[in-house]
Amino acid sequence: MDVIDVSWGDPHRGGLKPLTFVRQVLAACFYPELVQSDKLPVDVKQRARSLLSACDGGSVGSYTLSDGISYIQCSVSNFISRRDGGVPSSPENIFMTSGSQRSLMLVLKLLVHNQASLPTGVLTAVPSYTAFKSALQTLGATVVPYYLDEEQGWAMEVEELRRALQASKGICNTVALYVINPGNPTGHVQSRKCIEEVIRFAAEERLFLMADEVYQESVFGEGSEFVSYKKVLSEMGPPLSHTVELASFHSASKGFMGECGLRGGYVELVNLDPAVMRYAYTIFSTDICAPVTGQLALELMANPPRPGDPSYPVYAQETQSIQAMLVHNMNWVPEVLNNIPGISCQPMMGGAFVFPRLYLPQAAIEKAKVVGMQPDLWYCKQLLEEAGVCVRPGCEYGQTEGNHHIRLCVMTPVETMEEVLKRLKNFHLHFLKEFS
Amino acid sequence: MDVIDVSWGDPHRGGLKPLTFVRQVLAACFYPELVQSDKLPVDVKQRARSLLSACDGGSVGSYTLSDGISYIQCSVSNFISRRDGGVPSSPENIFMTSGSQRSLMLVLKLLVHNQASLPTGVLTAVPSYTAFKSALQTLGATVVPYYLDEEQGWAMEVEELRRALQASKGICNTVALYVINPGNPTGHVQSRKCIEEVIRFAAEERLFLMADEVYQESVFGEGSEFVSYKKVLSEMGPPLSHTVELASFHSASKGFMGECGLRGGYVELVNLDPAVMRYAYTIFSTDICAPVTGQLALELMANPPRPGDPSYPVYAQETQSIQAMLVHNMNWVPEVLNNIPGISCQPMMGGAFVFPRLYLPQAAIEKAKVVGMQPDLWYCKQLLEEAGVCVRPGCEYGQTEGNHHIRLCVMTPVETMEEVLKRLKNFHLHFLKEFS
Ligand SMILES: Cc1ncc(COP(=O)(O)O)c(C=O)c1O
Ligand SMILES: Cc1ncc(COP(=O)(O)O)c(C=O)c1O
Repeated sequence: MDVIDVSWGDPHRGGLKPLTFVRQVLAACFYPELVQSDKLPVDVKQRARSLLSACDGGSVGSYTLSDGISYIQCSVSNFISRRDGGVPSSPENIFMTSGSQRSLMLVLKLLVHNQASLPTGVLTAVPSYTAFKSALQTLGATVVPYYLDEEQGWAMEVEELRRALQASKGICNTVALYVINPGNPTGHVQSRKCIEEVIRFAAEERLFLMADEVYQESVFGEGSEFVSYKKVLSEMGPPLSHTVELASFHSASKGFMGECGLRGGYVELVNLDPAVMRYAYTIFSTDICAPVTGQLALELMANPPRPGDPSYPVYAQETQSIQAMLVHNMNWVPEVLNNIPGISCQPMMGGAFVFPRLYLPQAAIEKAKVVGMQPDLWYCKQLLEEAGVCVRPGCEYGQTEGNHHIRLCVMTPVETMEEVLKRLKNFHLHFLKEFS
Repeated sequence: MDVIDVSWGDPHRGGLKPLTFVRQVLAACFYPELVQSDKLPVDVKQRARSLLSACDGGSVGSYTLSDGISYIQCSVSNFISRRDGGVPSSPENIFMTSGSQRSLMLVLKLLVHNQASLPTGVLTAVPSYTAFKSALQTLGATVVPYYLDEEQGWAMEVEELRRALQASKGICNTVALYVINPGNPTGHVQSRKCIEEVIRFAAEERLFLMADEVYQESVFGEGSEFVSYKKVLSEMGPPLSHTVELASFHSASKGFMGECGLRGGYVELVNLDPAVMRYAYTIFSTDICAPVTGQLALELMANPPRPGDPSYPVYAQETQSIQAMLVHNMNWVPEVLNNIPGISCQPMMGGAFVFPRLYLPQAAIEKAKVVGMQPDLWYCKQLLEEAGVCVRPGCEYGQTEGNHHIRLCVMTPVETMEEVLKRLKNFHLHFLKEFS
């Protein structure tokens, strides 16, 4: 039996096709003789020409400045400003990195002090993106867990943030709040009202806000809409809009483009003290610079083809088909999961993942204990071995005591997703029978 | 007046052309429809096909494993083994990274312990590659300086290593020795005998050896030859060959390829304890993975076209012309510099840089003091402003008290280099006149 792997948030691995426009421009940047070719659309050639003239030595093979190619920082800041309905954005606040995982790490380095008497704490959701927790651990910082409310579709509640912060007193010095919106692994998308409350809380408690918004392009749940922390902060006006320190993260890895392997990310730093900005520049320069290909991909994300451009029809058709797939999966996958006995799934609003809850029979839980595994990890192992479906267990992301979940990536072609759910259902029913 | 910048070690920025074979394969990997085109040689298409089939999802846009694409780890380890005349190399010991600067940092993370009573020390040459010293500082480690012998063409002497290590006792816990061979900024290439002595010293003192060999492809000085630390270590036989811990670094940034912007590096870890290797894997996974384009570039470096391949003639012509330029510059630039009064330059054996000494008039030194600058930094500023030549001052790399140097990159087309030296000479003579 062939294994179907829906454990990664890696669109191309999952079967999505790269966008033709993106790949044509990158190919032409690598081998500019192609610009002569009549096989490439005019706008592709033009774009490749202007990107190359923004590279030192006219080559993607030259180092860039440590914060990135200035032309691309400008494109990205214009993109942010358009996305946020005109809220200004400064190119000097944009730092390009080798993927947003690396930006997260570098911003954490700004925040974490190892010489202090208490370790540095960062408020981090449960469940949450695992690599962020590893990054904190690597730096000797402490995860301050706050729980998302599963019954409310994994919403974030300020009361819970307050509790978590209070509980951390004396254990660590909590300086920052990490938010993933749209959520990973939850598929939740925060409302403007929620974001306002979170910002007000951060302001009161003088917390640095880290807004991980890498899934901003994938918000297709009914009635949900992506609003950035930057936009809400700006619209809340002074004094908050001038004082709350915010880092907002985005990536070429997710969304329609899905170019994980190129390692392109950026972070926008807002309201930081000029001395801290200078220190940030030093920290970001430890890698020399971000990979040029990833930087170029972010420029193409910021400026996709527009109606009237020769590349537009193909681009529109490709992105619309990805969008149709996501709209379909976001509505349909939770529905199917909710119809399997012993599984419940919150509605999905955005991002790439669903995180259904498993009600495992007591006998299965005991069995897992005997083999020394977390019950949902053991479940995943069985699912892989018996049904050839690879998913990740809830224990990796964190969950409330005694509950179990799995994470599935829905950025997956519909036919593949159908097969996954069919196999999962059969396996699960069989599993329930065996252990009850 | 146009500025000529020979301050970077960035071949494409300096005017070198990318290798056609490399760029064609990369373009075809980005846009596989090109494989259909009749514009690309057959071997390029074949190579693109096999590289793509080594990528998950058949796309350069997928994440790879944290240590790299296995197929490329194998290519690299075969390359190492061929380079070293058959000394075996294991793919599991190869870690692909976002440039060798990043590998240096990650290996340092393995070595630096912040919880200890004394800071971790690393023996580091004076003069030395600056970003390595910054990396040490970022990690809270201590630079333990050892001086290269300028009169001996910047050779490394074990007696001096012993002195430096001794002097560090009580100040830090020195655990590693960092060696750059071929040298940056010195242009020195170590002899097999020197390497043997250094290895024996490392073994006696139980030091971890970090061999930065990113300039291994550029060794063209008369009578000099690149021999890797790995090869010498292996040929020294047991017990040393099985015990001395060695990390050897290489990069896609330098050599004929010169693809700095792609961020591709690798490190080979030799004789590490299996537990440390597992810890290394964890540390290297903090970035998720290295950029795929950089990894592909390293594969192409490891397996260039061979005689008989359709791409070979162009490849051979391009690399031969780069080689001719390097051979010419390596011999001719020190000669010209030595003919300028008040400048002396050691013979150049390899690498990308010359590091001539400036004998500055006392009045110029006083003048620099008045403006609060290091004399050679001030000299560089004048050279840039008055002659439009950008070089770097010796003070950035470290030098013995009271001496002054500049660093020039010689991976620069001959006509450009001629203009640089002409301007430098005129400026320098004028400068001497003004201050004496
Ligand atoms: C929430 C979140 N943030 C950041 C990342 C890192 O993405 P990248 O480093 O590829 O930009 C991921 C990857 O899955 C993610 O899910
Ligand atoms: C000696 C040495 N090591 C490492 C590097 C880093 O190169 P990269 O990170 O581009 O591979 C350089 C760059 O100039 C260097 O001179």
